[in-house]
Amino acid sequence: MDFEFDSAMALTATDRPGVFTGRMTEDWTIGPAVNGGVVMGLAAEALRQVLDSGETPHADPLALSAHFLSAGVDGPVEVTTEVLRRGRTFSTGEAVVSQAGPDGSPVERMRALATYGDLDASSQVHRSITPPDMPDPEHCPSASTARDAGPMETPPLMHRLDLRLDPATAEWALGRPSGRGEMRAWMRFADGRDADPVGLLFMLDAMPPVSFDLGIGGWAPTLEFTGHVRGRPAPGWLRMETRTRVLTGGLMEEDALLWDSTDRLVAQSRQLCSVRIPEGWTLPA
Amino acid sequence: MDFEFDSAMALTATDRPGVFTGRMTEDWTIGPAVNGGVVMGLAAEALRQVLDSGETPHADPLALSAHFLSAGVDGPVEVTTEVLRRGRTFSTGEAVVSQAGPDGSPVERMRALATYGDLDASSQVHRSITPPDMPDPEHCPSASTARDAGPMETPPLMHRLDLRLDPATAEWALGRPSGRGEMRAWMRFADGRDADPVGLLFMLDAMPPVSFDLGIGGWAPTLEFTGHVRGRPAPGWLRMETRTRVLTGGLMEEDALLWDSTDRLVAQSRQLCSVRIPEGWTLPA
Repeated sequence: MDFEFDSAMALTATDRPGVFTGRMTEDWTIGPAVNGGVVMGLAAEALRQVLDSGETPHADPLALSAHFLSAGVDGPVEVTTEVLRRGRTFSTGEAVVSQAGPDGSPVERMRALATYGDLDASSQVHRSITPPDMPDPEHCPSASTARDAGPMETPPLMHRLDLRLDPATAEWALGRPSGRGEMRAWMRFADGRDADPVGLLFMLDAMPPVSFDLGIGGWAPTLEFTGHVRGRPAPGWLRMETRTRVLTGGLMEEDALLWDSTDRLVAQSRQLCSVRIPEGWTLPA
Repeated sequence: MDFEFDSAMALTATDRPGVFTGRMTEDWTIGPAVNGGVVMGLAAEALRQVLDSGETPHADPLALSAHFLSAGVDGPVEVTTEVLRRGRTFSTGEAVVSQAGPDGSPVERMRALATYGDLDASSQVHRSITPPDMPDPEHCPSASTARDAGPMETPPLMHRLDLRLDPATAEWALGRPSGRGEMRAWMRFADGRDADPVGLLFMLDAMPPVSFDLGIGGWAPTLEFTGHVRGRPAPGWLRMETRTRVLTGGLMEEDALLWDSTDRLVAQSRQLCSVRIPEGWTLPA
């Protein structure tokens, strides 16, 4: 049996150099849109295949910056890559993810720039951030179980992940947002697949919007996302922390940190999201 | 008299749509390279000119992500833009900054993706980060004065800025790095030009590498930089804080925050840099 994330990342080379085709499915949607992490994952996977070759192969995404242009939907997808630089230590490429629009012409979903290298070359940790204290996963409510018990249907995306919210930062799910703008959770793929660098980039965008903890519901579409992979993750559970500090008009940044089962910080990200602030909203005290 | 930063950002449209020419000069170098903030500034300025047009003009860079490919040098420069999306609220574009290489063919210095909008639409601050307490600028040593007094020549870039280091985070300049990986400073253009959104993106990359405070000297070339402009800056002094928390192998992230003279957080950034860790280096206690 293939793991679900591997199926989602499956790409076929075409006869055009650097161009791949794949398929985005309803299994990874949240609302009408395919999760942005899947779109980024496809870009990262295509670049990995292109850059992990030649005299200085670089298989690991170290930094990926994505700007989102339109919502991905269920259906075929094309990823077009361009190599910008092959260096001794780092290589850089660009990936464009597009789907056929209503008239059949391609519509860009996302464009990303990414720098690749070898994570084994930066395996030594000189200085880092310690993971937060959290109850064990079995004492943290599952995001999908909590949703299934409620009035709303769980989005398909939430069944691809085993996501266990730290009760101390999950009061928003009970209608009591803390106003701190913080969430913590355990995370792994639901089918037991271990994370790899491309999987980490997907996970960095897989938490519920941290704006929920500010009492602002609804979708928080990402304008821009940049993730840095800082280590090759060990097998097992990951821990994630998200936070926002600045909310101006309808824009907030969301910072994420991701640790592996050995307490190593393996990825960090920041994204700029658009939020719709409800009429009369005030920050929960 | 033109302000220096306006001269540095001067672009001439060519007969190719979306393509501009300009000039990078020794005035903005640090070592042999033109400062990366100037390269990003040229990209942001070109995209501003392209996107501030049409039915939904968007003049303000909200998020800019740059991946650096080679070091910019004194000489002519070309900026090629591509509009990826013009939306009602946001528009997105790409900019490629290149210079002629030894054989005359173009060499890419940097490629950036950027999302533009209208900062006046996000002028309301719902939640933010307060600026750090610092002595007044007149009680903070000027970075260029301190350098001129020392054995090393001040890089030309440092004469374009009036940069006053908070004495509490400037001990590294006296050979006593704190090991905290933090710097704070007052900043403005030396010739009195006030900052605008493009100027903020330049400033976010203008501090000495925060690795100096870890006892790691030398150049810290940026692989990837993403800046978010969160407000239109008021005239006058800006305050900046930089910090690194994670150093793995030869890579560190550097986070920057920038406040205007009204205490408003107007920009934030993160970059991933490459550092050369000296033989036998240990983190200062």
